Amino acid sequence: MNRPTRREAERLDAQDPLAPFRDDFVIPADTLYLDGNSLGALPKATAPRLAEVIAQEWGQGVVRSWNAAHWIEAPQRIGGKIATLIGAKASEVVAADSTSVNLFKLLAGAVSLRPRRRTILSEPGNFPTDLYVMQGLQRLLGDRIELKVVPTEELAARIDEDTIAVALTHTHYKSGWRWPMAEITAKAHEAGALALWDLSHSVGAMPVDLNGADADLAVGCGYKYLNGGPGAPAFLYVAERHQAKIVSPLAGWMGHAEPFAFRDDFAPASDIRNQLCGTPTILGLAALEVGVDLMLRADLKALAAKSAVMCDLFIAAVEGHPAGAELTLVSPRDGDRGSHVSFAHPQAYAIIQALIARGVVGDFRAPDVARFGFTPLYLRHVDVLDAAEVLLEVMAEGAYKDERFRRRLAVT
Amino acid sequence: MNRPTRREAERLDAQDPLAPFRDDFVIPADTLYLDGNSLGALPKATAPRLAEVIAQEWGQGVVRSWNAAHWIEAPQRIGGKIATLIGAKASEVVAADSTSVNLFKLLAGAVSLRPRRRTILSEPGNFPTDLYVMQGLQRLLGDRIELKVVPTEELAARIDEDTIAVALTHTHYKSGWRWPMAEITAKAHEAGALALWDLSHSVGAMPVDLNGADADLAVGCGYKYLNGGPGAPAFLYVAERHQAKIVSPLAGWMGHAEPFAFRDDFAPASDIRNQLCGTPTILGLAALEVGVDLMLRADLKALAAKSAVMCDLFIAAVEGHPAGAELTLVSPRDGDRGSHVSFAHPQAYAIIQALIARGVVGDFRAPDVARFGFTPLYLRHVDVLDAAEVLLEVMAEGAYKDERFRRRLAVT
Repeated sequence: MNRPTRREAERLDAQDPLAPFRDDFVIPADTLYLDGNSLGALPKATAPRLAEVIAQEWGQGVVRSWNAAHWIEAPQRIGGKIATLIGAKASEVVAADSTSVNLFKLLAGAVSLRPRRRTILSEPGNFPTDLYVMQGLQRLLGDRIELKVVPTEELAARIDEDTIAVALTHTHYKSGWRWPMAEITAKAHEAGALALWDLSHSVGAMPVDLNGADADLAVGCGYKYLNGGPGAPAFLYVAERHQAKIVSPLAGWMGHAEPFAFRDDFAPASDIRNQLCGTPTILGLAALEVGVDLMLRADLKALAAKSAVMCDLFIAAVEGHPAGAELTLVSPRDGDRGSHVSFAHPQAYAIIQALIARGVVGDFRAPDVARFGFTPLYLRHVDVLDAAEVLLEVMAEGAYKDERFRRRLAVT
Repeated sequence: MNRPTRREAERLDAQDPLAPFRDDFVIPADTLYLDGNSLGALPKATAPRLAEVIAQEWGQGVVRSWNAAHWIEAPQRIGGKIATLIGAKASEVVAADSTSVNLFKLLAGAVSLRPRRRTILSEPGNFPTDLYVMQGLQRLLGDRIELKVVPTEELAARIDEDTIAVALTHTHYKSGWRWPMAEITAKAHEAGALALWDLSHSVGAMPVDLNGADADLAVGCGYKYLNGGPGAPAFLYVAERHQAKIVSPLAGWMGHAEPFAFRDDFAPASDIRNQLCGTPTILGLAALEVGVDLMLRADLKALAAKSAVMCDLFIAAVEGHPAGAELTLVSPRDGDRGSHVSFAHPQAYAIIQALIARGVVGDFRAPDVARFGFTPLYLRHVDVLDAAEVLLEVMAEGAYKDERFRRRLAVT
């Protein structure tokens, strides 16, 4: 791609079928926000909806709202909506807990579905919390299971008769590289193993087809492209064929077949509700639902197409200028890629800080990655070029060498 | 106690040092709300605080607010505030996840602290989700542990050299009966076992002294007397002496010693943060903090004293009238009791429904209990007597026999 001009970006914006969605979001003042893949922007409808939930449903309805305001059904109702974004049936998804907690449930659930097998397979450099949760389960279960973290290029070949599940993140959090979901799932099934996908960096940025890929289990995040708010409830998916047999390790009252019978003995629901545990977090779910409802109006193929164009534009703008020479692209140049682009640089932390000081918000991922997310729902093509210009300025001026951008504890 | 008069209740209200707190809450219109032990009422400060978190911190700050608005510290900051309500050090408590998930962490944590022991002791009729979580852990760990649910009166005597932990709910969710925490904890320690307390029906209604009782582990609910909102984050406590050794089964990135180093290998924090797992749920935590801040201004001894008087008033008003004769008190008549009073009746479900139809909101607990919570922070003594009058009317008129109050799925 030739180095794109701002005029070309303006033309793309004028033709963009998704452009009207920008008006549905609060765009932070004086900011080019390239971190929607970490925390999605605020939908304008969220504040009034939360105000209503708080004042009316909680304030006036109080405990009666579990029924009257349909709070009790929120995990399934919102899960059912997310299902349409990931190629699943409404009855296969619930919104609850955090991604990490949901992953723990499904890993232990996978062990329950494959009781004679021992191995869980993953790749190094997977999102750390995913690896940590696997390590935590292994430590808890002692010799019962073994976590094998094998090189990415060997992974498919390492699936065998002892494999319980392959547990992978669909779109890599750092590079944006995307696993071929259907192919890996098929490989797993050939060996009688399960495929468990973390969709955190995919859902809401591209079509995902869990049923089409015949995926067994999945989890995903509510606060990235779903715009559900900081620490929004996550979701999980269990293919219908596994729901009656899978055993959740977190046997809480919301997973009981009759939660309000208040019996002493646990009897799990036979459907997706058996993956629920404690009382649903209503404020978080209400905010998540606003984000999901907005996403449901968007065409997923248009989202993926715009995302690909935005990433291409950014790469071409940076690489096409001499000031970008020190930045090494670590994302795929095209093809199977998420909606973010990462460049490696020894001073990536300081570069991100210098950018933030100039109103361009991307994020740093240790040890040396500067990551830029291009949320197709509310970003414009001109924003992509404007951000690239600021990055190139920072590089050309060496602005990141300023003492005040030196690394301290980073939380982004 | 003689049957109390409304004039006496008015006099108690006039003298009540806690009376001004009522103005800090939204009191549901046309309702006598006796279910603050299920879902606490809405503090007036919650809506403006949430509006600020949404519009400013999320909308304008977006991902920068993890640092700038101190989101990342919220679990510890709010935990530290809850600590002062339960006799713990600030460094011993975090707010996170649900009560059920936290209980799972600490039960598995107890197993890690007592690796050569096998038994977890609890009582029948404990809050069901507590028993379910214990059963779920037992199922997950197979022969490694055994859950023994032993009769309440035998429990202390059954603690022995094989006991990992005694896991009990401090105040019983149905009867309001309260365990002598220091005494049972001491019994557990004599045998080298741990004591794990669920404080859900205690915290915010009475002083709790975990450090004074030398308690090892505890969990509790944020949406009852803490008024944190529907499905608010829960909390957990680990005594300082156990923090470096306890192993959480839910090894998520927030429990890592360096969450933002993004390393592949889990290395737990050595302090209470090792009990955190996924990304903190900021909207829920912000609402919880408002409720906790309000509670911090109240005198806990005054709360407990008012709660005792309100429960006594209700019992005397109901039992002192012929129409109350069919109701059987299942709560302690005085002494070690929580802030709710329960009566058994074969038609308890219909009685609660008939009361709700008349604006008195208590709740039904299967199979036959009508439960009435007396939240000392925002209820008046006259409310207690007025509610008793409506209950007596419903009983005297047989209003609960109406077809429309027949039992269906109850969610209260």
